[in-house]
Amino acid sequence: MKVKYVYFFGGGKAEGNKELKNLLGGKGANLHEMTNLGIPVPPGFTISTQACIEYFKHNRFPEGLKDQVLENLKKLEEVSGKKLGDPSNPLLVSVRSGARISMPGMMDTVLNLGLNEQTVQGLAKLTDDERFAYDSFRRFIQMFGDVVMGVPKSAFEERLELYKKAVALRETFKELDLDKAVELAEELEDKAPEEIEEILRKHGLSGKGGEVAALLENAPKTVQDVDLSVEILKKLTGDFKEIFKKYTGREFPEDPYEQLWMAIEAVFKSWNNPRAIEYRKINRIPDDWGTAVNIQMMVFGNMGFDSATGVAFTRNPSTGEKKVYGEYLLNAQGEDVVAGIRTPKPLEELSKDMPEAYNQLIETFEKLEKHYRDMLDLEFTIEKGKVYLLQARVGKRTAKAAVKIAVDMVKEGMIDIEEALMRVDPKQVEQLLHPMIDPSYKANPIAKGLPASPGAASGKVVFDAEEAAQYAERGEKVILVRHETSPDDIKGMAKSKGILTSRGGMTSHAAVVARGMGKPCIVGAEDIIVDYDKEEFRVKDKVVKKGDVITIDGATGSVFLGEVPTVPPSFFSEFEELLKWADEIRWIGVRANADTPQDAQRARQFGAEGIGLARTEHMFFSGDRIYAMQEMILAETKEEREKALAKLLPMQREDFLGLFEAMDGFPVTIRTLDPPLHEFVPKTDDQIKELSERTGVPEEVIRSKAKALEEANPMLGHRGCRLGITYPEITEMQVRAIIEAACEAKKKGIKVFPEIMIPLVSNVNELKLQKEVVDRIAKKVMEEKGIEVEYTVGTMIELPRAAITADEIAEVAQFFSFGTNDLTQTTFGFSRDDVAKFLPKYLELKILKDDPFQVLDQRGVGELVKIGVQKGRSTRPDLKVGICGEHGGEPESVKFCHRIGLDYVSCSPFRVPVARLAAAHAVIEDKRKRQRSFRKS
Amino acid sequence: MKVKYVYFFGGGKAEGNKELKNLLGGKGANLHEMTNLGIPVPPGFTISTQACIEYFKHNRFPEGLKDQVLENLKKLEEVSGKKLGDPSNPLLVSVRSGARISMPGMMDTVLNLGLNEQTVQGLAKLTDDERFAYDSFRRFIQMFGDVVMGVPKSAFEERLELYKKAVALRETFKELDLDKAVELAEELEDKAPEEIEEILRKHGLSGKGGEVAALLENAPKTVQDVDLSVEILKKLTGDFKEIFKKYTGREFPEDPYEQLWMAIEAVFKSWNNPRAIEYRKINRIPDDWGTAVNIQMMVFGNMGFDSATGVAFTRNPSTGEKKVYGEYLLNAQGEDVVAGIRTPKPLEELSKDMPEAYNQLIETFEKLEKHYRDMLDLEFTIEKGKVYLLQARVGKRTAKAAVKIAVDMVKEGMIDIEEALMRVDPKQVEQLLHPMIDPSYKANPIAKGLPASPGAASGKVVFDAEEAAQYAERGEKVILVRHETSPDDIKGMAKSKGILTSRGGMTSHAAVVARGMGKPCIVGAEDIIVDYDKEEFRVKDKVVKKGDVITIDGATGSVFLGEVPTVPPSFFSEFEELLKWADEIRWIGVRANADTPQDAQRARQFGAEGIGLARTEHMFFSGDRIYAMQEMILAETKEEREKALAKLLPMQREDFLGLFEAMDGFPVTIRTLDPPLHEFVPKTDDQIKELSERTGVPEEVIRSKAKALEEANPMLGHRGCRLGITYPEITEMQVRAIIEAACEAKKKGIKVFPEIMIPLVSNVNELKLQKEVVDRIAKKVMEEKGIEVEYTVGTMIELPRAAITADEIAEVAQFFSFGTNDLTQTTFGFSRDDVAKFLPKYLELKILKDDPFQVLDQRGVGELVKIGVQKGRSTRPDLKVGICGEHGGEPESVKFCHRIGLDYVSCSPFRVPVARLAAAHAVIEDKRKRQRSFRKS
Repeated sequence: MKVKYVYFFGGGKAEGNKELKNLLGGKGANLHEMTNLGIPVPPGFTISTQACIEYFKHNRFPEGLKDQVLENLKKLEEVSGKKLGDPSNPLLVSVRSGARISMPGMMDTVLNLGLNEQTVQGLAKLTDDERFAYDSFRRFIQMFGDVVMGVPKSAFEERLELYKKAVALRETFKELDLDKAVELAEELEDKAPEEIEEILRKHGLSGKGGEVAALLENAPKTVQDVDLSVEILKKLTGDFKEIFKKYTGREFPEDPYEQLWMAIEAVFKSWNNPRAIEYRKINRIPDDWGTAVNIQMMVFGNMGFDSATGVAFTRNPSTGEKKVYGEYLLNAQGEDVVAGIRTPKPLEELSKDMPEAYNQLIETFEKLEKHYRDMLDLEFTIEKGKVYLLQARVGKRTAKAAVKIAVDMVKEGMIDIEEALMRVDPKQVEQLLHPMIDPSYKANPIAKGLPASPGAASGKVVFDAEEAAQYAERGEKVILVRHETSPDDIKGMAKSKGILTSRGGMTSHAAVVARGMGKPCIVGAEDIIVDYDKEEFRVKDKVVKKGDVITIDGATGSVFLGEVPTVPPSFFSEFEELLKWADEIRWIGVRANADTPQDAQRARQFGAEGIGLARTEHMFFSGDRIYAMQEMILAETKEEREKALAKLLPMQREDFLGLFEAMDGFPVTIRTLDPPLHEFVPKTDDQIKELSERTGVPEEVIRSKAKALEEANPMLGHRGCRLGITYPEITEMQVRAIIEAACEAKKKGIKVFPEIMIPLVSNVNELKLQKEVVDRIAKKVMEEKGIEVEYTVGTMIELPRAAITADEIAEVAQFFSFGTNDLTQTTFGFSRDDVAKFLPKYLELKILKDDPFQVLDQRGVGELVKIGVQKGRSTRPDLKVGICGEHGGEPESVKFCHRIGLDYVSCSPFRVPVARLAAAHAVIEDKRKRQRSFRKS
Repeated sequence: MKVKYVYFFGGGKAEGNKELKNLLGGKGANLHEMTNLGIPVPPGFTISTQACIEYFKHNRFPEGLKDQVLENLKKLEEVSGKKLGDPSNPLLVSVRSGARISMPGMMDTVLNLGLNEQTVQGLAKLTDDERFAYDSFRRFIQMFGDVVMGVPKSAFEERLELYKKAVALRETFKELDLDKAVELAEELEDKAPEEIEEILRKHGLSGKGGEVAALLENAPKTVQDVDLSVEILKKLTGDFKEIFKKYTGREFPEDPYEQLWMAIEAVFKSWNNPRAIEYRKINRIPDDWGTAVNIQMMVFGNMGFDSATGVAFTRNPSTGEKKVYGEYLLNAQGEDVVAGIRTPKPLEELSKDMPEAYNQLIETFEKLEKHYRDMLDLEFTIEKGKVYLLQARVGKRTAKAAVKIAVDMVKEGMIDIEEALMRVDPKQVEQLLHPMIDPSYKANPIAKGLPASPGAASGKVVFDAEEAAQYAERGEKVILVRHETSPDDIKGMAKSKGILTSRGGMTSHAAVVARGMGKPCIVGAEDIIVDYDKEEFRVKDKVVKKGDVITIDGATGSVFLGEVPTVPPSFFSEFEELLKWADEIRWIGVRANADTPQDAQRARQFGAEGIGLARTEHMFFSGDRIYAMQEMILAETKEEREKALAKLLPMQREDFLGLFEAMDGFPVTIRTLDPPLHEFVPKTDDQIKELSERTGVPEEVIRSKAKALEEANPMLGHRGCRLGITYPEITEMQVRAIIEAACEAKKKGIKVFPEIMIPLVSNVNELKLQKEVVDRIAKKVMEEKGIEVEYTVGTMIELPRAAITADEIAEVAQFFSFGTNDLTQTTFGFSRDDVAKFLPKYLELKILKDDPFQVLDQRGVGELVKIGVQKGRSTRPDLKVGICGEHGGEPESVKFCHRIGLDYVSCSPFRVPVARLAAAHAVIEDKRKRQRSFRKS
């Protein structure tokens, strides 16, 4: 069977549609869809991703591809009425990549393909614009040389600048002809003012060396592309061909078919260029998807001032406001907008420049949004007043916009609640919970730019993306500051806390990428003069050097010197609405990990339904408490230890009371002491001296105690319930504090549900012994107080052995909480503190898809969690089971917890909304999957 | 239904038999068995262990027990013709404990029960020996006071010594009557010579103070028990009753029935005395078995010189020689022999003392051995020429004796080969492989004693068991030196490397316990004068102080000063025969862990069928090799690293060649580099300086490199295959060395089967990448050499994730080897280096039954091993699976490996014979179990 590799669109109908993204790429599928909708799209055809995959298998075009391309080219010639290589009516085409998922700026594109010495003249004649024709031709040669043959862009650009210098020279020395001026410009390159004067003298010219040097230096900016005459452009095409030959060792291909084959192959190959690979790594896109190739009739936004090119979002991608949001450039080609070189105008102004085209565009946008039922990101070109859509795709948006658009669309009747929930990526939601600049902060910003991606970020200024990555890998927070960013900067951007550019608009590379990454970003801050060489930027009279700290506020576009105070985010009404919908749909409970009453209050505001993990030891580190803790550790006898513990008792009780108050009506899980004792013992000489003076214990004794507490592998050492077993008096004190606090809370009318959790159990007997202590003390305290408190005793499941023997453990434990941080450490044998030595390599080599400390390893650690749940419920069917590792707030992990039947997840307060949404996603995904397989069967 | 608690034996028949050990205890069951065999056993009855268990449940005698005892007592009175409490013909009984398993010296015993002021006179009349009657009475009061009421023994003994002092005084001052002498002795207690002279003067006596002081001090030794007159013994009984009253606040019970009830209760209670608990802990005996109580008519070995008491083994328990081996004391009670206070005579001499009784004994022994089909440990008493057997049990023996007896009995047709194999405890066999004193060592021993338990041991001399335990817990090797040992010393004995006593025979407490523990032991080294106060012992002119090092040779009884060189053990023919039988029966293969050609050769001698683990890193530590390793670590670039690795290549190749030669025809599993690199980097200033001078790398750089290699939890850090992945050049060098060595070996005609093993895999992708390296280099080397080598690539399964994902891993791995050391660490979350902080407590509290690093935790770690095997074989049915952790040589763990279907175990060379035997046990146990359940069905 012959494989179909090529799909046609044009003349009002297309062979594909928007569902065929995997085959035609996102761009291609949408071109087909729009064509079918009757939207004006330049006709063309798409070579499928399958062809690309085949190409990489054998490193040559698959069989039949060329024939199919030629067939479709014929159709295109019919529809367009033009012919490739026909000097009288030449068809020009663009050749663009288009993968399944949009990879902005990652892939290479060739425009104006089909031009050669013959067709350029035909084009000039047809458009009656020789200048336009040769400008297109020199652009084509450059782009083809760069993209297809790897000729350095700079080689072309230097030549262009030379002509600009020549133009500048001729304005001063009117006597020079063009050739002479070019020669002179070349001769004066990089010369000192005195030398310049001498050279000028030699040529019989007179001028001040300094002035001429400045003239030449500024020429690339002062002389615009439009200032280049036809004569110059013609010479440039010749020069560019020479450059092409110099770098490639071959003549520039005049045959348009040869151009076409070479361009298609180059697009295929671009799938594996380093920028693309890096992008895929960051965005976790499989390497074996391949890219489609779209070959499409050229339309020109640069055919004069009745032409334009632009981009638009059907709603505001930053705020979600229901209002078309776009930018355009008159008389320009599409790439000019995206590259951020010229700052474009807001779309509204087009209504003045070209009212008819503007109205047609707005109408088209509305039609498309209704059809796609989503906010779209569109590219358009107006050629001599005629509107063309070049691209439509679902628009990237900030978390805030995502939430607002989703909720608005429900109200507009466009989508239902489940769809709205699915439209918001839980990962992205965390952005909304990032701190913002304290609104009461009075300092003035040093500069203002466009608010391209919200959130506040502080860090050291760095001007190079590579260097930014290095800083970040050393653990420093950096703000990447650039004129503009390019795809080469992706890695550095990913590692930076925020991005600031002096040029570009809201749809520039920096803005789009930063929004995707959920990073604060300001673009087009034009007051800022960036000097890469001096590694500094100037803004008015201020100089900010590399390493100085600045703060950017991506929500307002303000740049501040130094680190600026931030405040926790507040919810906005659509977000609260969305989360309420999520709560109604989700099955799994969401709790927070909180150690202080403050954290507990915040968690409750964020929707937490209880505390899943209160780490009592965190309470020991603050203020004077560490002193009592140290006394306890230095104690030689049980009696001394009990004396020191007695000092800690009232502090713990107070904390627990605060937690109970904040979580009135909800359960509070309190874990007994977990970390090894050496964490509380001072390490430095000064601290030891201080402790010695405070306690009267000789320094030598403290040192030897510290020495005795040292461990080869503290993570696997004397910690967790092992402490409670060797020093039951610690557990006793903690239980007393919990139950006393619970009694007190109950007296105040607070509903308390303390859950006492024993950490690091590997064996049911450990839990048995600790539960005996808990029950004994609890009974005693309740008798003393004359108050009954309902409490339960459970355990962390954070060691493989606990999961494997969960059936035994559940005979004693009333609940389980999976501590997936420790469980990941022991299951993999990875120390969280040391993993940096090899984990980056593991991710690079794809040994691991994700950092298992961030995303739960479902295959290994998850399997143990599953085993633990099954075995636990086999002996105690009503066992309450939760998770309290970092993974409790990671969306994929939350979904996994839902699927394996956990009762709740517990995560840091800021991630509670993430978990609520992810939990709803899990239900909807399951439902949809079930429905799909039901329909199939 | 009425529960039967009491079982009668006597008059030629018994209600029980030897199969009822669980119910009647070992001692009881054998008394019943012997009675049925017609062996002369004093009649009596046994209270079952069930009664004891019931007693502990309610802390009182179970219902019906008293009635049953009274019934049986009546029977006993009929059979014996005597009556309890009858002054004219009193029945005296012994009350002894007897648990399921012999716990020598652990439990308490009361003799002569039934004596009171009336019956003692009846006894005197009947035996015509007033002295004997009162001696028995005072012994009874003391034993009853001590055992039943907890009156300190010393209180009685001091009084006895006072009388001895009085006797001594009367020899000097003949004028004194007994009462006066006792008074004077009391007055002179602890007085200085001058004071003594003054007191004597006051009493109108004259004597030198010093002489009298010495006289008094030596009296307990110079005056023997037999020197005490009837008059004194009568007084003593009175005094002892007073002492009894003073300590207990009540009169000594004259009613024999009251005596009986109290004694039975005391025996029950003795099950939970601290010594018994400690013994059970060491010997892993469950606490809930309880003890039986044997009540038996008294017979007397102390009725004059036609009476005797003794113990015997039917074969030599130390060598296994087929010759009755026993000891006896004339005119003594049984406890005197076991306590080791008097040194007894060899049994042969009884043929002169009492030829008839001797012959009767020997005949009885033979009859019993034939019946029991095993070597027996017997206790006997001869009362006025009449022989009684008091106890029969299977005799404890050294490993050597166990092997010889088992093999001999097969040849004698007494047992079959399977039974012989089961007769030898694999745990014990390791003893045979302990090093022995180098026979060519010429130094003279400083003393000789009885060779009570074989093996050589060196250590610091310590005189106190408690202190010995403390030394050992600090990691010091100690030899415990005592006059004799007592059950209170158990813990210290367990912690010592060897035991040396100056008194006692081959059946003394020290000898029996040490043999059980498999520890070298010498007893009765009478030249040694132990001085507890000065903490030293003297032997002739030498003084050995606490902390001095000695060596004892338990096989010859020689004591040496200092540490003496040892040699590996050699096999004896019976042992080789037994192991050959084991090899024929076992299914599972036995390999050795060996890192050097020397180890490999030894392993092969011990019967290893290949190497299961060669740790290549061990080769890096020796000699100059560490230098090249350090250069490799200090290398800044891959090239430098490769240069250093090139130096290691020939060394590794040579080692591997040696391994292949030693294991000609067997597989050799070589593990690639495993430990973290910092283990090779020097730590001290001197070492760093030396390394700096040698390599030219500045000290600062070395320090900072060392710092960079430091890890918080090295066990979970950058090691194992993580090294091979970050530095593939290391794996490359090692594979090259292996394959080059294999080619060279093949050229020499050696059959090589290299198995290349990748350590610490958590994820199949790690193995995939390393296997690619292995296959690439192997192919290259084989092409270079023009030789084909069959090799396989496999992995350690030593992380829980590897076990859980074994199905994936087996797609790449050709074999698995379970690294149960690391797997235990991660499954439990126990760092082997730090576990000492809590593991002793865990064993004490019975949280864990065994140290999981010694005995495989079948429930947790074993479950992961099982999962790993099942999953691995699910994708690769012919997967070869072994184990190479420490557990590979631990008998219970070997059996587990057999049961779950492993192909082989691998252990240290010395444990290979242990594993061979354990593997045979596994098969036989399975077979017997299957047969049992078949018979049941």
